[in-house]
Amino acid sequence: MSSSVARCNGEAAQPGYSMGPHTLKVPMELFALNRQRLCEALRPSVPDGAVVLLQGGDDVPFYCTDISYEFRQESFFQWLCGVQEQGCLVALRVRDGRCVVFVPRLPSEYAVWMGRLRAPDEFKAKYAVEQVNYVDEIPAVLQSLGTTELLTLHGTNTDSGLTCKAASFDGIDKFKVDNSILHPVISECRVIKTPLELEVLRYVVRVSSEAHVLLMRSIVPGMMEYQCEAAFKNYVYQHGGCRHVSYTCICCTGERGATLHYGHAGAPNDCGVMDGAMCLFDMGANYYGYAADITCSFPVNGKFTADQRLIYNAVLKANLAVMSAAKPGVSWVDMHRLANRVMLAELTTGGLLKGDVDEMLKAGLGAVFQPHGLGHLLGLDVHDVGGYLAKDPPRPTEPGVSKLRTARTLKAGMVLTIEPGCYFVEHLLVEALADPVQSKFLVREALERFRDFGGVRIEDDVLITETGCENLTLVPRTVEEIEATMQSRDEGAKLPAHITKASHGLPSNWHPC
Amino acid sequence: MSSSVARCNGEAAQPGYSMGPHTLKVPMELFALNRQRLCEALRPSVPDGAVVLLQGGDDVPFYCTDISYEFRQESFFQWLCGVQEQGCLVALRVRDGRCVVFVPRLPSEYAVWMGRLRAPDEFKAKYAVEQVNYVDEIPAVLQSLGTTELLTLHGTNTDSGLTCKAASFDGIDKFKVDNSILHPVISECRVIKTPLELEVLRYVVRVSSEAHVLLMRSIVPGMMEYQCEAAFKNYVYQHGGCRHVSYTCICCTGERGATLHYGHAGAPNDCGVMDGAMCLFDMGANYYGYAADITCSFPVNGKFTADQRLIYNAVLKANLAVMSAAKPGVSWVDMHRLANRVMLAELTTGGLLKGDVDEMLKAGLGAVFQPHGLGHLLGLDVHDVGGYLAKDPPRPTEPGVSKLRTARTLKAGMVLTIEPGCYFVEHLLVEALADPVQSKFLVREALERFRDFGGVRIEDDVLITETGCENLTLVPRTVEEIEATMQSRDEGAKLPAHITKASHGLPSNWHPC
Repeated sequence: MSSSVARCNGEAAQPGYSMGPHTLKVPMELFALNRQRLCEALRPSVPDGAVVLLQGGDDVPFYCTDISYEFRQESFFQWLCGVQEQGCLVALRVRDGRCVVFVPRLPSEYAVWMGRLRAPDEFKAKYAVEQVNYVDEIPAVLQSLGTTELLTLHGTNTDSGLTCKAASFDGIDKFKVDNSILHPVISECRVIKTPLELEVLRYVVRVSSEAHVLLMRSIVPGMMEYQCEAAFKNYVYQHGGCRHVSYTCICCTGERGATLHYGHAGAPNDCGVMDGAMCLFDMGANYYGYAADITCSFPVNGKFTADQRLIYNAVLKANLAVMSAAKPGVSWVDMHRLANRVMLAELTTGGLLKGDVDEMLKAGLGAVFQPHGLGHLLGLDVHDVGGYLAKDPPRPTEPGVSKLRTARTLKAGMVLTIEPGCYFVEHLLVEALADPVQSKFLVREALERFRDFGGVRIEDDVLITETGCENLTLVPRTVEEIEATMQSRDEGAKLPAHITKASHGLPSNWHPC
Repeated sequence: MSSSVARCNGEAAQPGYSMGPHTLKVPMELFALNRQRLCEALRPSVPDGAVVLLQGGDDVPFYCTDISYEFRQESFFQWLCGVQEQGCLVALRVRDGRCVVFVPRLPSEYAVWMGRLRAPDEFKAKYAVEQVNYVDEIPAVLQSLGTTELLTLHGTNTDSGLTCKAASFDGIDKFKVDNSILHPVISECRVIKTPLELEVLRYVVRVSSEAHVLLMRSIVPGMMEYQCEAAFKNYVYQHGGCRHVSYTCICCTGERGATLHYGHAGAPNDCGVMDGAMCLFDMGANYYGYAADITCSFPVNGKFTADQRLIYNAVLKANLAVMSAAKPGVSWVDMHRLANRVMLAELTTGGLLKGDVDEMLKAGLGAVFQPHGLGHLLGLDVHDVGGYLAKDPPRPTEPGVSKLRTARTLKAGMVLTIEPGCYFVEHLLVEALADPVQSKFLVREALERFRDFGGVRIEDDVLITETGCENLTLVPRTVEEIEATMQSRDEGAKLPAHITKASHGLPSNWHPC
């Protein structure tokens, strides 16, 4: 093959990742810059011969079968080198940033199953690293790098409580290993995004935004909820080259909007989409590891009722208040409280609550209507690392605020979600109505109208800039914008054929679930 | 909610699984019948107080994060009770078939994330079992069932080499446990499909067939291969309610057709679709655990060249020869040899090979052009269990035949794939050309034309009947049928909007990969 023609996926002269000419080409400089930043951050506290060693992911089989989940790369490893293949490791000499990727030595018959086996030099060119060797050469290569100490990854993910798996290889017992220095330093590096990382995040957020707009334009009563999931996944893959979504798609309609993680295996978006209900769609694509996380809430039929408008605008006002206030130096905990305050004030104006908003906040009303945190760091993980590092404020204990995935002070270069929500969760309302302190703020008769409402969440992906906050999300947000967008459904030509064909129409006596 | 209205997903009067009115409703009798068959098969060899205990699957996180792969249920557990939720177990008293499902006892605050928590009686109605209890009640319930011996699952999957995980619970040490009896018996039960299981398999094979036909009708040069994967997944989900595919989609075009497991993370269907190339698309949907597995091969531009027709017809003739010969009492190994023989004879007629076909077979030419087995059992696993049980013929050792996933004699009620193929794998051809025994059959000049051809595979899902074999697959198979089907692409109205919109067109100097 001639090297002068364009080639897919980073084998042209300029190494980079791409899913074709209509998708973003990610230069390998992204990872070189990540490595440089990590080395600079580590240098003051490690000896001259320190070498970082990370292990990439392996196939995960379905139970004991020979079929695996579609492969997802481990995020720390991805951040350091962007290698797509399974079974690899990467070493990084802190002194000078020399990077060595280790690939498995596969038997030649694997070519029948996996395609022509690449030589180390091909991987070296593909990923633009200084050196590539086979995994069985790790001890010798580490020797040749003058390794006096290996830095491996050991730390707890504060969202899952799980501990990451430290790199390992045959012969590691011959090396001095430090597994405490690396985790907080690399996690902090991941918190602040580089311009090259931001370009990927902007791309995946844009593609995900377009898919949400497609759903607004194409949803019709009589569909099943999962048909929206299918259309979202199809759009981001077809148009954006995103093979994966960043988390299980949440496609709530109606009362299911009050189930925060709807879409799981026990409730797999399998209900009917009914006229008059609200949608709460929380979906985000993934491109080369980088995650989007967007929620849009809108009425199935394209016209807000007065009650829908009331709840929607209360949440939107909270979202916009945070968007205006978020900037370097501001505490994320204060942003959560701000969102709660604005939303509760709006619910009071709307006649659902009564009394003093400060007292409501003290009584924990915020967590009755929004039982989750305001938002979270976003990057290679949708709930990105670095939320509760030892140097940062610990997890708050008061209801609602305790759900925050970080209590940090904002810094330029952070990317977060801003996702206030208002939900009518039956058991939380029952508890609040029975609580002598909380119940006095509740207007029982008015709340009765909302028992089956579900919920509204408005989730944007934002970048903290030097002076404020930039919204990367590109979807209609005001009631008027949403209604105008959904109006264009009437132009039949814009309706994607695969959606209209799929909505066979539910029987007239069909209950959504 | 009134029980008189239709409800989604098996909560109406007749319990069953469905993804909406346009999808198949699977009655819970399917699992009752599976349980009955297992009890009958076990009864002669176990004591009166024997109780089968199986453990269902749990969420599998991405590494140490709090995000999980989309949940897939474990297949033995699925076969026994069809329970969709994570973290469950099931007990089956062999004497009388009494079935108890154990569900996790979740804290009430989980309702915020998971939705209203179901009471045991709701699960009992949903899955039509005799009893439902919480997981923490297992020891007491087993006592009340009069358990004298627990039968747990221990055995090796002969495709993966992995061992299945035996059920376990706090207090199991108080029970006598036998982990050797169950595995071969339940595996053999799974090999023979019931009429109720066949209905699900027919459904998922039909939906997958329709998606393959859609691709024939909509593919255009200039697309990326993964856009075909996206369209397939979208179709089976939108129109069939199939959230999952049964294995990673294989969307080869051109020379990539010679890579049997193309589509993996290192080669994720990321090349351009070029005019003049062949497609080899191997994809199958999954409905309620049951798998389809279909391969279609056809030219991107809808017209076979003479060379494409030659290879295609050689493979088709092999496929049809097996389809005619397969019936109860016939050895699958003989079917593999039959396919090889027919195909090599055709390649000889076509001028690619020369000499005596019997001698070619002895020289191992079959495995040069088809380095995989003829086909495999199909069911809840795409490579279904029961291929090499202790009572059955062991794995053959000769090249090619050794790749068979079963060497069994066919029986009525088995479902298998018939998937002969012909590939031009560079390193296999180089080896064969260098081999004094094999090379004398090869017409070097003719083969030269096929070096970049890729491959052809024709894979059908079939049921062994009392008298022969029924093809469940519903796709055009002859050259004429395929060309006629693809001709209808010219009627623009039939082109799905999401595909035409996605094909932005590759630059003229674009190389496919």
